[in-house]
Amino acid sequence: MKIEVVENVLKYNKDQAEKNRALFKRKNILVLNLLSSPGAGKTSLIIETIKILKKKKNIGVIEGDISSTYDAEKIKEYTDDVVQINTGGSCHLNATMLSQALGKMNLDKLDIIIIENVGNLICPVGFDLGEDYKIVMSSINEGDDKPVKYPPVFIKSNLILLNKMDLIEISDFKLDFFQNKVAELNPTASIIKFSCKTGNGLQEWTSWILGAYKP
Amino acid sequence: MKIEVVENVLKYNKDQAEKNRALFKRKNILVLNLLSSPGAGKTSLIIETIKILKKKKNIGVIEGDISSTYDAEKIKEYTDDVVQINTGGSCHLNATMLSQALGKMNLDKLDIIIIENVGNLICPVGFDLGEDYKIVMSSINEGDDKPVKYPPVFIKSNLILLNKMDLIEISDFKLDFFQNKVAELNPTASIIKFSCKTGNGLQEWTSWILGAYKP
Repeated sequence: MKIEVVENVLKYNKDQAEKNRALFKRKNILVLNLLSSPGAGKTSLIIETIKILKKKKNIGVIEGDISSTYDAEKIKEYTDDVVQINTGGSCHLNATMLSQALGKMNLDKLDIIIIENVGNLICPVGFDLGEDYKIVMSSINEGDDKPVKYPPVFIKSNLILLNKMDLIEISDFKLDFFQNKVAELNPTASIIKFSCKTGNGLQEWTSWILGAYKP
Repeated sequence: MKIEVVENVLKYNKDQAEKNRALFKRKNILVLNLLSSPGAGKTSLIIETIKILKKKKNIGVIEGDISSTYDAEKIKEYTDDVVQINTGGSCHLNATMLSQALGKMNLDKLDIIIIENVGNLICPVGFDLGEDYKIVMSSINEGDDKPVKYPPVFIKSNLILLNKMDLIEISDFKLDFFQNKVAELNPTASIIKFSCKTGNGLQEWTSWILGAYKP
């Protein structure tokens, strides 16, 4: 008897991700899967993004956490379309969880969905959700060595964000070191630098989103 | 036919953890399992701890990372006893990996081993390594909501550390909120606050270690 547990899990996820992707295409929705360490600023970025783009695009949010609705509560002040997924301990979202969350959203009125994955630089990387872009965000306080320490997420992401730039002067973060390591791992990915606190640099990020949105 | 994969993995880990624990006891070694998000400052804390305690205790270090020897290279300037474990993608250390690393250390001359687990607030929690204490470190820049977002690691840890206190004035971190949430989850755990950068508060941490060391 042959036991193929892991392969089946990933195959099943891939199949469901393709269904999600087909649904997004049919509904003309741009979907961004946002990954980072805990506390890098994913929720703050989502809120600032909605504030800047709200006159141009309807943005829905899917919040992934092991438990609690803490982030979703913050975000619902800025959009009606936020769904919380509690993974019950799992360190990443998967395509089936996403599909269930999508069933609770009004997809016909949305242009963009931002998925805030569980705060973790390792586990979410292997699970395709059907998104258009996987985006990893690092932050100044985490240090400049995250690409060295967690290569897969930097290799697999389509875009690299660097938050909390307002703190670079009082930190030891070496921007050249970070950028060179990212370039080694992922030569084609851009790095967008900003501070959600001051707002500096966010325009480049929202312009990137508008450029990626192709109905 | 009954398939019990998960249960067997955890049972096997538990058995190996007990073997590690017996070995530590036989050799009179205090073992600390240090957990945190990426970039909270585990490596810096280990270096500062060795600097402060080196005249009193011989400290060995086991470094856990998915790949690279980046942190071990930094630490080997401060101790001869550092072993790097590369998990090959896994988001946590397990007791078997630890046992293999122990085989490469001179346990007879060590008083304390600090294990730097893989940077992750979720996965390492469920895997006993045979340590005396599980210690979680949070940092100011990650925000005050980590206990709300990642309850299990705060529930299961014996001690809570809070690093980067030098940045609290320029952050939105609400110390009361953090402390109250920790107290709800884990009423008996102490919180030790410090800054590895300025050194403030580190004495309380090293005193805690010396108090925990009971040969």
